[in-house]
Amino acid sequence: MKIIDIKDKFSLFSEFWSPKIVGELNGQYVKLAKLKGEFVWHQHENEDELFMVVEGKLTIQLRDQDIKLSKGQFFIISRGVEHLPVAEEECHVLLFEPKTVLNTGDVMNDRTVDNLEKI
Amino acid sequence: MKIIDIKDKFSLFSEFWSPKIVGELNGQYVKLAKLKGEFVWHQHENEDELFMVVEGKLTIQLRDQDIKLSKGQFFIISRGVEHLPVAEEECHVLLFEPKTVLNTGDVMNDRTVDNLEKI
Repeated sequence: MKIIDIKDKFSLFSEFWSPKIVGELNGQYVKLAKLKGEFVWHQHENEDELFMVVEGKLTIQLRDQDIKLSKGQFFIISRGVEHLPVAEEECHVLLFEPKTVLNTGDVMNDRTVDNLEKI
Repeated sequence: MKIIDIKDKFSLFSEFWSPKIVGELNGQYVKLAKLKGEFVWHQHENEDELFMVVEGKLTIQLRDQDIKLSKGQFFIISRGVEHLPVAEEECHVLLFEPKTVLNTGDVMNDRTVDNLEKI
């Protein structure tokens, strides 16, 4: 058990779209990620996923609407809902989701990171 | 699915030590609470609990050390670990924990809130 300082943790990495594990509890991970640009459309069949914006702005495109998030806001994407995260400028997010989540969900491509680093 | 603005949610209530549910995912709740003063020693037998400080400072006393948290920091208390949250000044926290968590854990007293409000 240790104190996690979110800003300090963000200072430890620079790559985009590569979530880092900063906490684990009850079968869930707390992750931090830096986002910039557009990700890939995907969904998580069995997991709900929480995006909390820590710095910057994030748009989560859904098939029927755009969810625009600012610092201090979060959004829970229910399992099975296709989504596309887009950050026009660099954005820092905290994710809370089951340990089983793969970042690209049902899609496997060059954006897939299947061996997440703990920092 | 809706956008949750954390500061807006905190403006909706004023009572201390009465967590409000602001999100639900994967059998877990996201809760917000305002803390001031000293709570009661307790533990959660089957649940790990995350405290994230959104505003102010929080001390989580453990039996062998004091964990001092500031804004932007979080701490995960493993199941079975006795703890006593203490906030000298008003403090706002975000909690991530299983839906089954009772605020006073293994203790039932006048601080127990067993029917949490969703806001």
